[in-house]
Amino acid sequence: MDQQKLEQILRRIREGDVRVVSRLIRNLEDSIPEAKEVIKYIYPYTGKARVIGITGAPGAGKSTITDFLIGSYRKQGKSVGVLAVDPTSPFSGGALLGDRVRMQDHAGDDGVFIRSLATRGALGGLSAAVEDAIHVLDVMGKDIIIVETVGTGQSEVDIMNNAHTIVVVLTPGMGDDVQTIKAGIMEIADIFVINKGDHPNAAKLYLDLLRTLDMMQEFPGGWKPPIVKLESTANPDKFAKQVDELRQKIDEHLKFLEDKKIIEQRELRKAKVQLLNAIESQILVPIIDALEKNGLMEQMVEKIAKKQVSAYELVEEIKNSFLKQNLDEDCKQ
Amino acid sequence: MDQQKLEQILRRIREGDVRVVSRLIRNLEDSIPEAKEVIKYIYPYTGKARVIGITGAPGAGKSTITDFLIGSYRKQGKSVGVLAVDPTSPFSGGALLGDRVRMQDHAGDDGVFIRSLATRGALGGLSAAVEDAIHVLDVMGKDIIIVETVGTGQSEVDIMNNAHTIVVVLTPGMGDDVQTIKAGIMEIADIFVINKGDHPNAAKLYLDLLRTLDMMQEFPGGWKPPIVKLESTANPDKFAKQVDELRQKIDEHLKFLEDKKIIEQRELRKAKVQLLNAIESQILVPIIDALEKNGLMEQMVEKIAKKQVSAYELVEEIKNSFLKQNLDEDCKQ
Repeated sequence: MDQQKLEQILRRIREGDVRVVSRLIRNLEDSIPEAKEVIKYIYPYTGKARVIGITGAPGAGKSTITDFLIGSYRKQGKSVGVLAVDPTSPFSGGALLGDRVRMQDHAGDDGVFIRSLATRGALGGLSAAVEDAIHVLDVMGKDIIIVETVGTGQSEVDIMNNAHTIVVVLTPGMGDDVQTIKAGIMEIADIFVINKGDHPNAAKLYLDLLRTLDMMQEFPGGWKPPIVKLESTANPDKFAKQVDELRQKIDEHLKFLEDKKIIEQRELRKAKVQLLNAIESQILVPIIDALEKNGLMEQMVEKIAKKQVSAYELVEEIKNSFLKQNLDEDCKQ
Repeated sequence: MDQQKLEQILRRIREGDVRVVSRLIRNLEDSIPEAKEVIKYIYPYTGKARVIGITGAPGAGKSTITDFLIGSYRKQGKSVGVLAVDPTSPFSGGALLGDRVRMQDHAGDDGVFIRSLATRGALGGLSAAVEDAIHVLDVMGKDIIIVETVGTGQSEVDIMNNAHTIVVVLTPGMGDDVQTIKAGIMEIADIFVINKGDHPNAAKLYLDLLRTLDMMQEFPGGWKPPIVKLESTANPDKFAKQVDELRQKIDEHLKFLEDKKIIEQRELRKAKVQLLNAIESQILVPIIDALEKNGLMEQMVEKIAKKQVSAYELVEEIKNSFLKQNLDEDCKQ
């Protein structure tokens, strides 16, 4: 892609051209190389947006909270971008439909942009796509970017590592008591939300969580995650007020980060995740793709299964042939 | 390592030299290159053992079941190797202590070998170490290898993919009802165990599980996972008899695999996992290690955090310098 084309795309993104942004995000989801070129070009224009990660079990009420958070931020005059990520689904089709339903609440509001992302590419692809999509919404000028993802182990932690503030949503009586919170998530949470806080088991969950937090020794920079209770949406006005409180806690956390210069540390953490993801997606994935394309993978797997040769020896062959390809081109120069 | 040394190690492993095997497994856990060389050399001698994976939530009673399974197999005159894997812990220290306690039950029995493995190396290291340790116990001549691991998402599935027969242990009233069984595990289970089957909620768990299995459309080759109920160990003789039944189900499954030629498919699945793990551990991990060693990683992370350059551009540099290093050596030849 030439410089002029890249400049044009950058300008369109900054103008908030929804079609250009949507197509770019779709291409990132599909790991299209041109899309990565755009990211390289626009990356220096990022860094203004604040990224909020929201995670929790399926059915915990993340989308509802996100919807109300959008409203709360809009009242503050802030523009909002939302990335709804489902690492368990290879299809964003259903999610896209969900987008349209959700978009209606904010239809005609240029200050809101919502997009879904699902696992479409190879391994590690989704986390990289989310990271890149955050950069795009950042350049688009969104003040707040909300990344919403279902809790599913490592991919969830990877995705959450892109956020400045991480909100973990828990619900009582869904089998997700404090014991079952995955260790990795407990450690990265900045704010806990107990949703459906009017459920009979909510008080127990609250106490358990409080006790667990009390037992934790270290909070980076001294930030002890607050617990925000949200009740039923049966009373939307009350729910909206409670989400306003959540938004205030988030803003307090962002302010804390800036005051404490911890935001720099968090930027470093995000940068490290970006680098590791890029190594995976730009070095590992192309090797695997190439092997699968020419049927070599299948042959190798068969040899290993027949105990003819160990996987390690084959990987040496892969390494050498991969190097040799590049070698042949470079030695000639 | 020269041919003679490798031959000697192979002979020692085949003779069942516990010290040589233990040191080798420890070196595999630490990703020591010489240990990988040994695996390459001994790999063609593998393929005789049958590998049983046992997984379930912490506290589900996996170790107790494993202990009784050892007894059950020993009564059949089969030798048993056990690998107890904890992907959540970076330390095998505590686990090693556990080994010793557990070893006492089978002390002086040359037909039993028990070892713990924990996350010590870099990413992906544990799954590769488990895979390699299975090869070692296989060459050691163990008829049955039991791999026991805690349920924690992808690493659990990776580890279980090394098994011929996968046993998933559930317990009633621990918040791990059928809804919370991770999808990936539900799909790879060959046998379900409901432990603590005398608990008041066991009947409900049993019915839920039965209903879920009935709703599942496809069972590879027609094997529908049976459900084995185990009661309290308060009556050890009764428990032992129930574990004998579990052992019979496992043997039925292994026989089914052989009859149906599905074992070949499973060997292919195992082989593919081995190849992907090897690509990760032999290509990706060395790059990351090298970057971390000379401080380059830190510099790069800082540049990304300051939005000076995108991760993708830096990865291109990494790729080129990595290739160049090998190039300089090879072009001269």
